[in-house]
Amino acid sequence: MTAVNWEQFYQNQAPPSCLDEVGKNVTKFCAKHQNQKIVLVTSGGTTVPMEHNTVRFVDNFSAGSRGSASVEYFLKAGYAVVFLNRLNSLQPFIRHFPKQELFDCLDVSDSQQGPQITVNARKGQKLVRILKEYKQVSKEEKLMSVSFSTLSEYLWLLRVISQELNACKKHALLYLAAAVSDFYIPESKLPTHKIQSNVQSLQVSFNLVPKMLEPLVSLWVPDAFVVSFKLETDESILISKARGALEKYSHKLVIGNLLHSRKYHVLIVSDAEEHELRLSPQEIEAGKEIEEKIISELVKRHDDYLNQS
Amino acid sequence: MTAVNWEQFYQNQAPPSCLDEVGKNVTKFCAKHQNQKIVLVTSGGTTVPMEHNTVRFVDNFSAGSRGSASVEYFLKAGYAVVFLNRLNSLQPFIRHFPKQELFDCLDVSDSQQGPQITVNARKGQKLVRILKEYKQVSKEEKLMSVSFSTLSEYLWLLRVISQELNACKKHALLYLAAAVSDFYIPESKLPTHKIQSNVQSLQVSFNLVPKMLEPLVSLWVPDAFVVSFKLETDESILISKARGALEKYSHKLVIGNLLHSRKYHVLIVSDAEEHELRLSPQEIEAGKEIEEKIISELVKRHDDYLNQS
Repeated sequence: MTAVNWEQFYQNQAPPSCLDEVGKNVTKFCAKHQNQKIVLVTSGGTTVPMEHNTVRFVDNFSAGSRGSASVEYFLKAGYAVVFLNRLNSLQPFIRHFPKQELFDCLDVSDSQQGPQITVNARKGQKLVRILKEYKQVSKEEKLMSVSFSTLSEYLWLLRVISQELNACKKHALLYLAAAVSDFYIPESKLPTHKIQSNVQSLQVSFNLVPKMLEPLVSLWVPDAFVVSFKLETDESILISKARGALEKYSHKLVIGNLLHSRKYHVLIVSDAEEHELRLSPQEIEAGKEIEEKIISELVKRHDDYLNQS
Repeated sequence: MTAVNWEQFYQNQAPPSCLDEVGKNVTKFCAKHQNQKIVLVTSGGTTVPMEHNTVRFVDNFSAGSRGSASVEYFLKAGYAVVFLNRLNSLQPFIRHFPKQELFDCLDVSDSQQGPQITVNARKGQKLVRILKEYKQVSKEEKLMSVSFSTLSEYLWLLRVISQELNACKKHALLYLAAAVSDFYIPESKLPTHKIQSNVQSLQVSFNLVPKMLEPLVSLWVPDAFVVSFKLETDESILISKARGALEKYSHKLVIGNLLHSRKYHVLIVSDAEEHELRLSPQEIEAGKEIEEKIISELVKRHDDYLNQS
């Protein structure tokens, strides 16, 4: 048997050691931001180990661009944010300075008072703006970050965080942008050691991951405003897949996007309609991000939902 | 047939579009640092796409810690460095400030002259030291960086860079620390679109990647000092695998390491002996890195090799 239900998955995959601590921290975070809007943003790809002592794994394409950008716009809109992100994926604020760029903003010189670091004028403006935003968020403790690597860690953490967020009822928004694997190899079937390359070829069998949206929507956070993502490479099946997910899991919205155009075009699919968001060439040129439009649209819809009796 | 030789691999896998440009840049870099010691450091894991429009891929465990740290010690030892690294893996210098740490070193305030960024005293020392090293290396143009993601990109770039480094003869050292996949799916066998999850399970067949050390040592850089790595999870096979590689490819050294102890224990295996390098608990506590010892040992051996008639 290869398709297991979600309860069996949790029975058979060991939880991460940080699980209880994360649960407690989310409880505290919810209490601190009681009666405010709060969002869980998931981000980055999940890994599927191919060996117990893992050298090789299957991964999902995602640098964490969508998730890390979205966190900033949710914060600007006044949300408290739980950011469940893949280890070493893009992080809010610092993402604006890829590779060594932050070093290139700084100059160092020796003066009589010792070495001095100064900000170089040309690049300083951007640094000032983003640093101010970052410091403000840190001061207000509006952002809580939790990291995962494997699919199993992700699904365990998703469950505990959702269950804690349930206390926030309709104030909670779940924004499930992580690229979660559909396939995995159960722990019981993993070889202990690194697969050796003294073979002619390698056959690997993957099981289907149970769809966790089902218990999430119906059991873990029944009152929350849940938004999932659907990424495809084939445009012809995108809307039908998005609509299929909505019908099956009865959550609020699916954001559909295509691999090649995801940075400037998405479809917000609800029961009632499909709403298109697009960056114009001028907006792309000016550095505008599609996540700004997505979050602005979601905030409106979440507000409407909150105002329903 | 699943095991192809290296020539067939290059015939069947399309080269990256940057190939010619990288070749030209390495030629220039070699000319600029003529008669100086020069090293190619490869770093990070290679991805093996499972779809043409790639959403899923197999990856090798590596954050690029070994490679990015080694670059710094080679630079300190006076080498010019070509750094062939996995996109978004750890980078030299900036690696000392993970996540948001660099932001935490900086303070921002508003003064009459406008906003001021200052370095906070507690964390400033480390920043000054590393920033100085980085600026020096940038000024001297001693570091050239080339990025890859897929196995195929890596192997194409490895070949062109090696072939250009051949002009440096014995001055060239190749330090092959990248975690290169042993298995791949040929382009001709890849599905075009994202594999759909409306199946019960998924079987994937991988082919064996040809061992590129063979043409590299015998054809591309026959005079260079070539060092490869062997990572295992099973201690009982480490030395025999390292020795097997030396016998098969006739290069200079294999650095053997185990997944769980690789940050404080390695074995430098040559034809003549096995040389152990280890960090003491005191050295680990003090923040010393095993790469400092590895590079110090390699520099000695490379010098001996250069001084042989």
